[in-house]
Amino acid sequence: MTGSGAGMTGEVPAGKPLLRALAGESLPLPPVWLMRQAGRYLPEYRELRRRLPSFLDFCFSPELACEATLQPIRRFGFDAAILFSDILVVAHGLGQEVGFREGEGPVLEPIRGAAGLRLLSPEALPERVAPVYETVGRVAALLPPQTALIGFAGAPWTVASYMVEGGTSRDFAAVKRWAFGDPDGFGELIDRLVDATVIYLSGQIAAGAEAVQLFDSWAGVLPEREFRRWVIAPTRRIVQALRENHPKVPVIGFPRGAGLMYRAYFTESGVSALGLDSTVPPPIARKTLQSIGPVQGNLDPQLLVAGGAAMAESVAAIRNALGGGAFVFNLGHGVVPETPVEHVAELVALLRRPADTP
Amino acid sequence: MTGSGAGMTGEVPAGKPLLRALAGESLPLPPVWLMRQAGRYLPEYRELRRRLPSFLDFCFSPELACEATLQPIRRFGFDAAILFSDILVVAHGLGQEVGFREGEGPVLEPIRGAAGLRLLSPEALPERVAPVYETVGRVAALLPPQTALIGFAGAPWTVASYMVEGGTSRDFAAVKRWAFGDPDGFGELIDRLVDATVIYLSGQIAAGAEAVQLFDSWAGVLPEREFRRWVIAPTRRIVQALRENHPKVPVIGFPRGAGLMYRAYFTESGVSALGLDSTVPPPIARKTLQSIGPVQGNLDPQLLVAGGAAMAESVAAIRNALGGGAFVFNLGHGVVPETPVEHVAELVALLRRPADTP
Repeated sequence: MTGSGAGMTGEVPAGKPLLRALAGESLPLPPVWLMRQAGRYLPEYRELRRRLPSFLDFCFSPELACEATLQPIRRFGFDAAILFSDILVVAHGLGQEVGFREGEGPVLEPIRGAAGLRLLSPEALPERVAPVYETVGRVAALLPPQTALIGFAGAPWTVASYMVEGGTSRDFAAVKRWAFGDPDGFGELIDRLVDATVIYLSGQIAAGAEAVQLFDSWAGVLPEREFRRWVIAPTRRIVQALRENHPKVPVIGFPRGAGLMYRAYFTESGVSALGLDSTVPPPIARKTLQSIGPVQGNLDPQLLVAGGAAMAESVAAIRNALGGGAFVFNLGHGVVPETPVEHVAELVALLRRPADTP
Repeated sequence: MTGSGAGMTGEVPAGKPLLRALAGESLPLPPVWLMRQAGRYLPEYRELRRRLPSFLDFCFSPELACEATLQPIRRFGFDAAILFSDILVVAHGLGQEVGFREGEGPVLEPIRGAAGLRLLSPEALPERVAPVYETVGRVAALLPPQTALIGFAGAPWTVASYMVEGGTSRDFAAVKRWAFGDPDGFGELIDRLVDATVIYLSGQIAAGAEAVQLFDSWAGVLPEREFRRWVIAPTRRIVQALRENHPKVPVIGFPRGAGLMYRAYFTESGVSALGLDSTVPPPIARKTLQSIGPVQGNLDPQLLVAGGAAMAESVAAIRNALGGGAFVFNLGHGVVPETPVEHVAELVALLRRPADTP
């Protein structure tokens, strides 16, 4: 089914810089990829996107999603391609109505309480998400030999927050109210998401994904106790289940905004590598996080928009702090649509030069 | 002008629990107040609020703002009253058009670049904000003897973010673009806000505020370097200026979402006490933050909405971790409108009992 096949055998191809870094190796030049490296800042993506108005249909078209995944690789030669998809594919896979409004983000029919849970149909998930596996297989067959393929899913807490809030939220009132007020009931939703995520990521790995990332975009809104219960514990269960069948496929955890809980997340969830958001100070990351395992990050996407000296200085600071250990360069959040394409080229060129070269 | 007058003489009234805790004393029962303790969750506030449709006019009415400030003191007997006002009073004071739309938050004519700066009229500030001082004076005269009076202002980065974005923001793209791309130009806006904030808080102190809090609600969106420049450095300048004239009035800094930068903020800004948002793990706060000075926080406002066992357990965890040192109980963010009034009463009752009493 795939040309790469690393995921199927669990074998790490010696040559791929991303996989070497995720396996703990410190490389002279950090491998680089960017969250949302495929997307609206690219003219070729905007062109492609016009061919299918529904965003979810676009994600489920292996032809178009494969092409979107490959576009930034052709243009910039990143060290990894990340599957073009959306974290709400799993909500759709579970039978929830998911839509996307231009400029507004996702819109879902909110699920609340036991009655909402009964509306889900987890048995239909494998068939519903199957087109994504086909995309992964196509991409794997077409990638350059040094480029790794990353699959991904939203982490349960974050996907649950969209499913319960019905979209993006400012205060997460509805999902917190459920999680805080009825933890057992909410736990059933999280359990279903854990199971669905394991199935979904296993399918991506079987199709050729060589590493997977768990996006916990809203990890940073929970107090300690709830963070342990709804962020760390479900992540650990997913990591353990994946590791049983795919022991060599690294899982990158990205608990955005985890702040003072980053360290507990890294040590307790068992993820192979840790994605850092832009607010994590690189010197603290070196001392307290990179000592546990590989880290990935963390340029502010708005510094990529700014470009020039501000970007170059921050890139240097990040490399100086983290480049001496196992490290993957990335942003601390996704590329924003306003990003000038030439700044991305500049960034990659910067990273292809040794750190001490001005 | 005031009945309390502590701020004018710089003398800490020995009896007020809040001021004792902020001076570093560890008390058997933690003093308690809540951010947004006056506000829409209170029926008497909603009633009062109807008397003046414009929110800014309401803030500038000494009679109504004084009454709003006192309502939660009467009902719950908090250890501190906090001036009823808004952080955007300073933006208005500088001459920017500020409006509030029901349920949507503030709406400002965005200020960007040098041209925007020239539209500000800082010389008019003292007169524009004078009604707030009158409110402070009225409240000071009416508070029970054990209740401290807290004044406040938004911190420069946060106020700037509203002034530049024109309201609340999801990604802070406009303010980051200015701050990252033209730090010298943006620095002029911050300088004006530093000066305005010193004037404004000094006026509140002269009128009777016994402590002041700097709300940096959006501190948590900046990378390290920019956090030092736009959060820590302006805060330090404000603290130093206030301390010169009011050496004994404590300044509580609340850099919401600062995460791994909380410690640097506390040590480097010079604030007297540190407000913790709900994501700060209390055991880490005890070890790395309370060792520097008094801390305040940090129950998740949605746990106050939930009430019951979830609230009681979290309150106990916070007290167990922090109650042995200098500590003020608060939420980690403001009371939300949906909060049941009886849960607030429950919370205060919990806190009036020794920590080990079930």
